[in-house]
Amino acid sequence: MTVLVIGATGEIGRAAVAALSEHYDVLGVGRSTTPAVDFTRPETLDALFADHAPFEAVVVLGGEIPFAPLSELTRENFESGLASKFLGQVETVQRGTAHVADGGSFTLVSGILTDHPVAGSAAASAINSAVNGFVVGAAPELPRGIRINAVSPTVVTESVQYHGAFRGFAQVPAAEVAQWVLRSVAGEQTGQIFRAGW
Amino acid sequence: MTVLVIGATGEIGRAAVAALSEHYDVLGVGRSTTPAVDFTRPETLDALFADHAPFEAVVVLGGEIPFAPLSELTRENFESGLASKFLGQVETVQRGTAHVADGGSFTLVSGILTDHPVAGSAAASAINSAVNGFVVGAAPELPRGIRINAVSPTVVTESVQYHGAFRGFAQVPAAEVAQWVLRSVAGEQTGQIFRAGW
Repeated sequence: MTVLVIGATGEIGRAAVAALSEHYDVLGVGRSTTPAVDFTRPETLDALFADHAPFEAVVVLGGEIPFAPLSELTRENFESGLASKFLGQVETVQRGTAHVADGGSFTLVSGILTDHPVAGSAAASAINSAVNGFVVGAAPELPRGIRINAVSPTVVTESVQYHGAFRGFAQVPAAEVAQWVLRSVAGEQTGQIFRAGW
Repeated sequence: MTVLVIGATGEIGRAAVAALSEHYDVLGVGRSTTPAVDFTRPETLDALFADHAPFEAVVVLGGEIPFAPLSELTRENFESGLASKFLGQVETVQRGTAHVADGGSFTLVSGILTDHPVAGSAAASAINSAVNGFVVGAAPELPRGIRINAVSPTVVTESVQYHGAFRGFAQVPAAEVAQWVLRSVAGEQTGQIFRAGW
């Protein structure tokens, strides 16, 4: 059975596809793939689920959140970040549950900013925390032994554009984050926040 | 100088007004008070801030989140809970910062569901987590020594209607939650999540 990776073209996404492909059939999708999926418009998932389900696991490695000084963050900034990184992942779970096999899993992505903020991260710290809280709250309620975890990386080694904002932070190679994704898919734990590199 | 309590008519709000009134002038407001404030419509705060600022501290003890089985929670449920308990508190900080005195503070409210879910709490666990994450991310960015904390209570003793959903949980009297609010207002800490009763 297949593992679906949404957000397969980013740094972590490519590494996750590589790591998972050693053990599973993997269908990696993104906004520019065929089939194209934009999980901020979760209705684009429905055709994918209808055509390729059931899945052994669904992995989401996408979502964008605005960074700006607190005094400049607008309500629209919060709402767009919530729609992308929080509601996008929630909708993937809600729409995908019926298409995941018994004992399958969801793996979401959050990040270190929940606990260690950086300049401009007020929205990111909040929205990543919402993802973690959803994992905690949803885990006991998923049917048929389906599990859910989040992988929460520190700043990724390959994402050089973020290093300036994360001076002094430990970095984690995308391949190491991918191993946490694999562990979430292959393991038996649920409701966990797996800290990758911190 | 005055402490503003938004959500002053609930169980915790009344106790907070009582505890704070021993040390501060307190202006307690809610949807049915004069002036009336509905912090889910943050524009209703602007007249209040204009007429009564500056404040020594702003305390928010409101916000409503839908409870339902995960399979029944709709996107609208998540969005309405976010608008009330998350964005309502964020907007109070964003609109209120200019009206809080140097060295003043914000105190928000989250809850134990971030770490200990109950049946139907997937949205509540997520949205309370977003509040906590916002406190962590916003604390370093507030100007003029303004602080921000959240009080996170377990189920409140006086809120008998929730006891059935929280069987086996320690309960906390509203007066004890109010002491954590007082500590947040009177103390020097910032970026903290104060667990009340757990």
